[in-house]
Amino acid sequence: MGRWEADASGRLREAALQLYVERGFEQTTVAEIAARAGLTARTFFRHFADKREVLFGGAADLQAHLVDALATAPTSASPMQAVGAALDAAAAALGQHREHSVQRQSVINSNAELRERELIKMATLSNALAEGLRQRGVHEPDASLAAETGIVVLRVAYERWISEPDGPDLAQTMRDALDRLKTVAG
Amino acid sequence: MGRWEADASGRLREAALQLYVERGFEQTTVAEIAARAGLTARTFFRHFADKREVLFGGAADLQAHLVDALATAPTSASPMQAVGAALDAAAAALGQHREHSVQRQSVINSNAELRERELIKMATLSNALAEGLRQRGVHEPDASLAAETGIVVLRVAYERWISEPDGPDLAQTMRDALDRLKTVAG
Repeated sequence: MGRWEADASGRLREAALQLYVERGFEQTTVAEIAARAGLTARTFFRHFADKREVLFGGAADLQAHLVDALATAPTSASPMQAVGAALDAAAAALGQHREHSVQRQSVINSNAELRERELIKMATLSNALAEGLRQRGVHEPDASLAAETGIVVLRVAYERWISEPDGPDLAQTMRDALDRLKTVAG
Repeated sequence: MGRWEADASGRLREAALQLYVERGFEQTTVAEIAARAGLTARTFFRHFADKREVLFGGAADLQAHLVDALATAPTSASPMQAVGAALDAAAAALGQHREHSVQRQSVINSNAELRERELIKMATLSNALAEGLRQRGVHEPDASLAAETGIVVLRVAYERWISEPDGPDLAQTMRDALDRLKTVAG
């Protein structure tokens, strides 16, 4: 993908988010998103399958970051330490643009279909982490328990980070949540 | 609901499950389910909104059992101990009819729409448990962490129980998974 194409994708994403916040997700059309970005609907569909996918385009990249961090964690790391390394990678990928994340989350929370899509994304991430742990030699049920618990920490920390404008950054919020989990579960 | 009505609901559920296993969920019509149960489609729709709801009719009861067990756990119980009491109640409600559960799960696993519905059911359960914990005076993020981790244990144990015909019963499988979680997270 050339530089111009990457810009088109970013402009479409930004235009879509603006419109979803202003008018609501259901009320926004692809034609309006393209017009706001100064592009055509045809260009939109070269980048995104539908207006829902604009909000979830980063899912595959996010998963790749997490799985990679899990795979390259030291052999000596416990399953939960390896998951912790994956959460650090998630924080680095997700924690850069707080205002954008806040807006995206408010759009998702306001629409049942989008909330479902987000649940599926998290379940897919969780399965990928469990598979990564099994490849590290972790047996069941430990692999699934550590992976799914890791995704719980990611979600709880992410919600907290979104809702606390003056709180710590996402990486710190995730580490705090992981610590609390140890206390709560122990 | 009278005795005859309760029987109708049970017969429809049994007929639907048989047909979903024999022909697949998509290929089965409400008319066929009603005919197999010796009832009319009109009776079907008095009990269930659609053929998907036949598989999820017990969700509200299950949630009531869990929330009740959480609320009546001793005041001295830690958040995770209270969640453990809720999981015992879940095992009592879900663990009675293994063969039925195995068939239901195979139908759900074979259909993306049903898998999504199951994810939503689990997220709803999780939110109800977190609310129950907050009513017990547990603060955030501990309430969400304990509730969501409890649902992870429920799901992982349930899958294990389904896949191991000669394994321990569901209550024991849940307690084992909760113990493993303490080791994994600790």
